[in-house]
Amino acid sequence: MTEEQNIVYVGRKPVMSYVLAIITYFNAPNAKEVVLKARGRAITTAVDVAEITRRRFMEKIKISKIVIGTEEVKEEDGRTRAVSTIEVLLSI
Amino acid sequence: MTEEQNIVYVGRKPVMSYVLAIITYFNAPNAKEVVLKARGRAITTAVDVAEITRRRFMEKIKISKIVIGTEEVKEEDGRTRAVSTIEVLLSI
Repeated sequence: MTEEQNIVYVGRKPVMSYVLAIITYFNAPNAKEVVLKARGRAITTAVDVAEITRRRFMEKIKISKIVIGTEEVKEEDGRTRAVSTIEVLLSI
Repeated sequence: MTEEQNIVYVGRKPVMSYVLAIITYFNAPNAKEVVLKARGRAITTAVDVAEITRRRFMEKIKISKIVIGTEEVKEEDGRTRAVSTIEVLLSI
C-alpha cells in the first residue's frame, strides 16, 4: 500500500460508503493509517465518518491528528473562492 | 476572564458574527485562548470561523488543538441520536 492509496476523499456519498472504505483499508495487511480529506459542507460528513468508524466498527482506531486549512477554488466565472478543508488522520 | 467565558458556541448565525466574537475576546486584556464548539452541520461553520479569523483578521492566532467527538441528543419522540462535535482551540 503506497502513501497515496490510503487517502479517502469525503464528498456527497452516504456516510456508510466512506466508513466501509476505511474498514477495507485497515483490513489490508500492514495498513497502519488512513487520511480522511474533505472540504466545504463535506467537513461535517468527514467528522461523522471518523466518529462512526471509531465508535461502531473499529474501536482500536485512534484519531492521531486533525488539520484544518483553506483552499482557493476557481469558479466557472473565473473568480476564486476560499473553501475550508479538513484532514483527519486515523491510525491503528 | 474565567474559563467558561472564552467558549464560543457556533450555530446558525452568519460566520462573521462568530469571527467578531473571537476578535472581541482576543482584544480583552490577558486573553490567551478561545474554544470554538460546534456540532452537526455547524462543524463546517466552526472550521470556516477559525480559518477566516486566522487568515483575514488575526494572523498571530494559532490553532493549538482540534478534538472531535460524539454527543447523544434526545429527540422530542424520546429517542436518542448521535451527533458529531468539534472543538477548536485558538490561542495567541
